[in-house]
Amino acid sequence: MESRRERLVVIGGVAAGMSAASASKRIRPEMEVLLLEKSPFISYGVCSIPYYISDEIKDYHDLIAVTPEAAQNERGVFVRTLHEATAILPDTKEVLVRCHDKKKDERTTFDKLVIATGAVPIKPPFPGVDLKHIFALRTLEDGVLIKKYIDDWEGRQAGAEADESLRVRSALVERQDRLRAVIVGGGYIGLEMCESLRKRGLDVTLVEKMDRVLGTMDQSVTDFVEETLKREGIKLFKETSVLGFEGSGGTVSEVLTGQGKFQADFVILAVGVRPESTLAEAAGIALGVNKAITVDEHMRTSLPAIFAAGDCADALSIVTGKKVYIPLGTTANKQGRVAGENAAGRETVFEGVAGTAQTKVFDLEVARTGLTSLEAERERIPHFVSTIQGRSRAKGYPAGKPITITYVVEEDTGRLLGAQMVGQEGVAHRIDTLATALYARMTVEDVARLDLGYAPPFATVWDPILIAANVALKKMDRR
Amino acid sequence: MESRRERLVVIGGVAAGMSAASASKRIRPEMEVLLLEKSPFISYGVCSIPYYISDEIKDYHDLIAVTPEAAQNERGVFVRTLHEATAILPDTKEVLVRCHDKKKDERTTFDKLVIATGAVPIKPPFPGVDLKHIFALRTLEDGVLIKKYIDDWEGRQAGAEADESLRVRSALVERQDRLRAVIVGGGYIGLEMCESLRKRGLDVTLVEKMDRVLGTMDQSVTDFVEETLKREGIKLFKETSVLGFEGSGGTVSEVLTGQGKFQADFVILAVGVRPESTLAEAAGIALGVNKAITVDEHMRTSLPAIFAAGDCADALSIVTGKKVYIPLGTTANKQGRVAGENAAGRETVFEGVAGTAQTKVFDLEVARTGLTSLEAERERIPHFVSTIQGRSRAKGYPAGKPITITYVVEEDTGRLLGAQMVGQEGVAHRIDTLATALYARMTVEDVARLDLGYAPPFATVWDPILIAANVALKKMDRR
Repeated sequence: MESRRERLVVIGGVAAGMSAASASKRIRPEMEVLLLEKSPFISYGVCSIPYYISDEIKDYHDLIAVTPEAAQNERGVFVRTLHEATAILPDTKEVLVRCHDKKKDERTTFDKLVIATGAVPIKPPFPGVDLKHIFALRTLEDGVLIKKYIDDWEGRQAGAEADESLRVRSALVERQDRLRAVIVGGGYIGLEMCESLRKRGLDVTLVEKMDRVLGTMDQSVTDFVEETLKREGIKLFKETSVLGFEGSGGTVSEVLTGQGKFQADFVILAVGVRPESTLAEAAGIALGVNKAITVDEHMRTSLPAIFAAGDCADALSIVTGKKVYIPLGTTANKQGRVAGENAAGRETVFEGVAGTAQTKVFDLEVARTGLTSLEAERERIPHFVSTIQGRSRAKGYPAGKPITITYVVEEDTGRLLGAQMVGQEGVAHRIDTLATALYARMTVEDVARLDLGYAPPFATVWDPILIAANVALKKMDRR
Repeated sequence: MESRRERLVVIGGVAAGMSAASASKRIRPEMEVLLLEKSPFISYGVCSIPYYISDEIKDYHDLIAVTPEAAQNERGVFVRTLHEATAILPDTKEVLVRCHDKKKDERTTFDKLVIATGAVPIKPPFPGVDLKHIFALRTLEDGVLIKKYIDDWEGRQAGAEADESLRVRSALVERQDRLRAVIVGGGYIGLEMCESLRKRGLDVTLVEKMDRVLGTMDQSVTDFVEETLKREGIKLFKETSVLGFEGSGGTVSEVLTGQGKFQADFVILAVGVRPESTLAEAAGIALGVNKAITVDEHMRTSLPAIFAAGDCADALSIVTGKKVYIPLGTTANKQGRVAGENAAGRETVFEGVAGTAQTKVFDLEVARTGLTSLEAERERIPHFVSTIQGRSRAKGYPAGKPITITYVVEEDTGRLLGAQMVGQEGVAHRIDTLATALYARMTVEDVARLDLGYAPPFATVWDPILIAANVALKKMDRR
């Protein structure tokens, strides 16, 4: 009797799922690896979608790292797109699968399972939230839909203008010459979409519930971002709650808020995501913080032979040592790889996250790592905040820009808990130095001693990172 | 009887000296601080001089951080420029001083002394090395001289061209239309001057004794730099020894090398520097590696009450734990501060150097930290080298550039010993992440686990730093 090959099933094929599938094959080529993805696409860069909509990236195929064919031919991973897992049966080690193309249900067995179902956009129960042209932005399909919507409108405009030259100006052109977008939520995606849609020439309104954009970041940073948004023509409404949506003919036309009504041809709802853990929960797998799937350092769930990775799973904070839910593509890729390696029998470890994130908002670079002051407060860690303004280039060297750096420092020990930065250049990569300092549990005194590089086009002789550390040290002396 | 104020004398007023003077006053304002500088200038950015010569920085005053007046008025430091210390008398705690302006000698007493005499360019005993228009590039005066030489030549050219329009073309213009520079030495200064002089439109020949530019750096990096030099029109001669200089009327006209003669209107000799430790040595202060002044972690020399800092002093390598001589502005500023603090009675520490350095060579960023392979070999540390090519931006995002990263890794432990990088963007600040990893004595496994930032305009989802670490890890597995 021929022995059946051991089979790994991976549910979800974007970042964590594809990483898990590839890693397991790399380690144990003899293992059978089956990847199930409910959408038509696998292995794409979610973070690049705003740049596809802005048309900086013309073709969505450029967002795709590995096609199903390449996964199969080059990595030996069997990929089934349009195959949605609908249930996990841990006792019989089976997954129920709906095949959207063949419109039928199947079941498949597994020896090992990796759940990489990702996250789903939060959709608050606002009246009218299901009207047409209220978009989420999470999947490549969302991106394609939004871009097509804008392209189509532009196409109609061009058509109307051509007509107009024949003196048959349409009612549509009479009424407006710009597509009006309302973005709800001033987090990373909301801000990136502000830039993206302005680049397309749209009229953009940003509605944010809190007193600042970028949630918990320090005001020393968010003030710069808000200035830039306004300078770039974004209509920014802070401390503004959405009450609902109104429409005509089933299509959204107005956003109702505490600050009044905003006309909208379409809406992007970007108020955050939640882990897609419903399948896991139904199978009896333990959930933790934010209802994410609880995993150990090997990405094992509470059930044997079942792993989870990416935006559906939690992670350890290397700063607090506690479980957190910080869904990011970088983490998804790393966790996916560790899940795949462990599923294939190699005991590797995912250490945890610092919570490092960065974004570009028009000409600004914004970045953070570790805890913000608000987060340190929630954790009841006695701390102080220290902010400096440095410069990106040496005195005299042309075109230097200001860089603002905020450190969150533990009160008695001087340990760095987190850092935030904003500036027009030299921010995005500088945050990595501080993420590395967090990994090594450095104090601001350690940071002040770092031997960082210097050349006039790239830094000041005391790098802004060092100046910030020295200023924080002085603050400690005075306390 | 009134008690005399305690007096700190600082010899040398550029980076380390000015830092020491300022730091001591900050800590003990009641201390009298006297700074002696033999040149007319203090507190200027040596590293910015090439950008002054290229005319990107128009005015040399923009290179000066603190003027003598500001040092006195804002920091309470008495500054004496054109005052050269000619001897240190440790027994009587005196310094002999030649006042170049008044052309007389003085002596001054000290309670504490900081020696910050810097480094001097190495001037090999080539025949003809003292001919006119053979320049060193070390001090602001050197920079002013070189720029004036080029400006004057251009002025004469413009005059000749004006004459020519009157049909009196001069013999000079007949003979050449470009000033010809020969740069001897392909280190940081040599390369920066290549760019600087090309920007001024000069004909530039670079002569390098070794088989590559940038000395001990890995060929995976230096190949890129050499390609760029050639593309930018630099005539590069490697493995080429200078034999001497020939001149006419006391002015250099030819550089004699093993590869033939090169015509030269002027020469920049950039073959390295040596610590200016002659004063210290004459006073009986112990010298160490490279004849630099030996200092402890408080920047104390072998004699009581005498400190040294900056390019005249040695430092501890945080990688090998041994003394090294790596003269850099960043280190000079840090050591100066620590020397000043300790002279003022606060026991602070200078931890050591990683040897982090970066430079811009035309459109390339080049950076290094820690040991090169050659240096690890000299230290007899069993190691291997791993090189990868990554990209500066996400797939699909416009204008991404290749980044080459080389890691030097300790054989059995996997400890990162050093890193080198080259690329058109995203190099200069990425090296700081690895300098931080060296400070924390990380292995490449640690580096692979770092939670670095990601956004499509700034990085790939696996940052090149992480890819390089993962590739190095795989190499370890295979050994």
